[in-house]
Amino acid sequence: MSSGKAEIGLIGLGTMGQNLVLNMADHGFHVAVYNRTTEVMDEFVRAHGDTPGGLTGCRSLGEFVAALKPPRIAVLLVPAGKPVDSVTEQLIGAGVGKADLIVDAGNSLWTDTIRRERDYADRLKFFGSGVSGGSEGARFGPSLMAGGDAKSWQRLKPIWEAIAARVDPKTGRPLEGAAPGKPVKGGEPCAAYIGPDGAGHYVKMVHNGIEYADMQLICEAYWLLSTLLDMSPPEIGDVFAKWNRGDLDSYLIEITADILHQKDPQKKNAWFVDSVLDAAGQKGTGKWTSVNALDMGVPAATITEAVFARIISSLKDERAGAAKKIKAPAPLSRRALGSREQLIDAVRQALYCSKICAYAQGFQLMRQAQTEYHWTLDFATIARIWRGGCIIRARFLQRIASAYEEDKDLPNLLLDRTFRRQINAGQEAWRKVVALAATGGVPCPAFMSALAYYDSYRSRRLPANLLQAQRDYFGAHTYERVDQPRGQFFHLDWSNPDRPQQPA
Amino acid sequence: MSSGKAEIGLIGLGTMGQNLVLNMADHGFHVAVYNRTTEVMDEFVRAHGDTPGGLTGCRSLGEFVAALKPPRIAVLLVPAGKPVDSVTEQLIGAGVGKADLIVDAGNSLWTDTIRRERDYADRLKFFGSGVSGGSEGARFGPSLMAGGDAKSWQRLKPIWEAIAARVDPKTGRPLEGAAPGKPVKGGEPCAAYIGPDGAGHYVKMVHNGIEYADMQLICEAYWLLSTLLDMSPPEIGDVFAKWNRGDLDSYLIEITADILHQKDPQKKNAWFVDSVLDAAGQKGTGKWTSVNALDMGVPAATITEAVFARIISSLKDERAGAAKKIKAPAPLSRRALGSREQLIDAVRQALYCSKICAYAQGFQLMRQAQTEYHWTLDFATIARIWRGGCIIRARFLQRIASAYEEDKDLPNLLLDRTFRRQINAGQEAWRKVVALAATGGVPCPAFMSALAYYDSYRSRRLPANLLQAQRDYFGAHTYERVDQPRGQFFHLDWSNPDRPQQPA
Repeated sequence: MSSGKAEIGLIGLGTMGQNLVLNMADHGFHVAVYNRTTEVMDEFVRAHGDTPGGLTGCRSLGEFVAALKPPRIAVLLVPAGKPVDSVTEQLIGAGVGKADLIVDAGNSLWTDTIRRERDYADRLKFFGSGVSGGSEGARFGPSLMAGGDAKSWQRLKPIWEAIAARVDPKTGRPLEGAAPGKPVKGGEPCAAYIGPDGAGHYVKMVHNGIEYADMQLICEAYWLLSTLLDMSPPEIGDVFAKWNRGDLDSYLIEITADILHQKDPQKKNAWFVDSVLDAAGQKGTGKWTSVNALDMGVPAATITEAVFARIISSLKDERAGAAKKIKAPAPLSRRALGSREQLIDAVRQALYCSKICAYAQGFQLMRQAQTEYHWTLDFATIARIWRGGCIIRARFLQRIASAYEEDKDLPNLLLDRTFRRQINAGQEAWRKVVALAATGGVPCPAFMSALAYYDSYRSRRLPANLLQAQRDYFGAHTYERVDQPRGQFFHLDWSNPDRPQQPA
Repeated sequence: MSSGKAEIGLIGLGTMGQNLVLNMADHGFHVAVYNRTTEVMDEFVRAHGDTPGGLTGCRSLGEFVAALKPPRIAVLLVPAGKPVDSVTEQLIGAGVGKADLIVDAGNSLWTDTIRRERDYADRLKFFGSGVSGGSEGARFGPSLMAGGDAKSWQRLKPIWEAIAARVDPKTGRPLEGAAPGKPVKGGEPCAAYIGPDGAGHYVKMVHNGIEYADMQLICEAYWLLSTLLDMSPPEIGDVFAKWNRGDLDSYLIEITADILHQKDPQKKNAWFVDSVLDAAGQKGTGKWTSVNALDMGVPAATITEAVFARIISSLKDERAGAAKKIKAPAPLSRRALGSREQLIDAVRQALYCSKICAYAQGFQLMRQAQTEYHWTLDFATIARIWRGGCIIRARFLQRIASAYEEDKDLPNLLLDRTFRRQINAGQEAWRKVVALAATGGVPCPAFMSALAYYDSYRSRRLPANLLQAQRDYFGAHTYERVDQPRGQFFHLDWSNPDRPQQPA
């Protein structure tokens, strides 16, 4: 390397940061590293000094800047929010200049990235990249969603494509088998340029919103099998393992099967999942997605129900108190449940149909965000880079990519011919499962919300005519008519006994 | 009146502003009025010069300030947002001082009111008041939710209590019959001091969130009767009129019956509601409620589904396109539907049970807001002032008031003994209706969400144990255990073949 300087630097040696560095070094990149607590950096460099690319440990940001080959590329993996601004300012103080590229790879709010790209434009190139896949993904191949100016992407691209997860383009399945020092080669990298400024972080946020829905739907399926059929965790684990060989094939289904087969290491003859407290935590990205859906006016109802489901689960003590006071409905009869095999398969179909709806909502969000933020997003590419590396990776994303390859302006995934056919085949089972959940008192907010979303979206008529009439009645908010062009508003003079209609 | 000056002033003579002035004048208050467009003010004063209290028309803010008896009280009814700050600054320029009280009676965001009270504290008393009831309410008795400092409330109270709607304290029913110059006397006024700074506007916002849910639930009931039983608008109107004589007795049910009996004034032999386009509008306060619920972590899922239902209805063209491509489920058999009378009554019970859940969510929001904003809210009083004047006024609120009188710390309305009994009596019908909606493909997002909320809230166990295990698996997010005290977090080392548990 010319003058022995590092090709890329990384600031913030938490688990994600360390793993990203090791991943880059595995691919032959020499990486300069800096961490606020110097001991962490020293220890890290000591432990991994023999990595193929080589590491340069830096004890100050001045050393860090000097260690990088200009024009510099530095990746930030510091907590979202103020730390990102603070480190960026310090880098400017340490000599980073206009030609240098700062890549925020943390979980930043996309609007912060939009602001930062603008605010720092005169002093450096600020770039944002979503990184998904947790610590394992960071180490052996994450999904990388890059957002910023297109020229900077050209500089980052070789590194990002090298370290990303890789998928078999034919099957859409991740190529597995990476190990320290032995990265997977071949296949298509799960890294792409998403669009300007905050586009990468935005798409990462939507990924997380979908992840919330995906996880909640899986929990509801598990709970239906557990409560309606009294199945044990490993029995349900077997079902999930089987499902993982079909349309539901995905990382989350796979780990669910693994979790359900796990024994409690602390307690004899107990299953791990039975010992875990049912109070969910969250880090806020699901909430961001829901708030953004509300702000933009996109009906991401199922994602939002998943956020609320986590919240209601966290009210553990209140629920325990309520359970003592409020009567459950009568248990379902054997006849209502029908055959065990059929019910298990109906739950699978309900899960799959609901999952399509959750993804449809996520893609609707991104579609609207284009208008809101002046981006042009390539949905096929987004689906493709989610096939590997990230938490929602699934065989299913191959089909989503195809749907957008066939029609890049597809208004909604529900309209894709394959998904239409699949939901049509599964809808009877899906409806039956929701009906049983309602009758038997099994809380299935996401299954129900997805079904209501589906039925609303496919309905030419909805009862909002009555709602508009109510709004006109009490607040003179006006209405449109079915027999007049859109955009013509009317008001009925409700206080006049003759109730004439007036143009508004 | 001393020096012939006005006891109160009002700025902003839109419909709401004009009607509030006339209401105050009907009660003998002399009101100074100002409007940015002077002609509107001139016309208004000319038309209503003979009102009992008397009006003083002001052509400038200087005239307006001079017309008010010090210490002054001026009500703002200008659009929410910047205009409120702009007019307040202009009032300061025109001579309003530290002893004067400015009452923002618009639909301001409560956080703006919190900010304004603080920012203007050295220059004037800034006070916020929610006003509900539309233009009719403003004219003959609104529901008034006052927020600000308690001393200022003492000054505003006589006027606010005089102009508010009034209810019979025994039955909880509004006293009707107000007419120009003939205000209703007696009864309890629907006006109260809610708490400091933004508390009044906050409670008004929650009122609107509940209103969104209330309206959506009514629409779903209407749609079930229309689609499953093929009932005509006036037939359904008859049902609503009947329901309005029972537990559902409320303004929204009453106007729904009226609307459904309304003929289309533009088209022979057509019902009005059939001519109204099914694309709902919104002004944003429902959305504010949902965003706040997400921000505070309160599961207001049904209110949020109502917001999303409006959004999805507004995608009219997309829905029409989807309806052509996506197959509806097979229609329900007569046998599945059962007896017509029983189904109608089941829909009533589903509506009532769901309504309780929507209100429970609204009150949970206010309960959480106390902690968030350092308020102490009196929920019985809030329920009482919603019995009259406002859009959600209902007999039902009398029972909510009693619930909080019996236990002011009630964690959730679902735990009140009367509501518990009522839902328990209605749950079988409610569940049946949701099951039919699911099976028959009738979009009922709010009915379904309310049921899932109810079943989640009354469940000692939810499947969030699996969700926490998943989060620990892919992100080392840790979990709590059912057999260990809360607040102790653990991590399973999933990558270690022995999978030991570690304290986190």
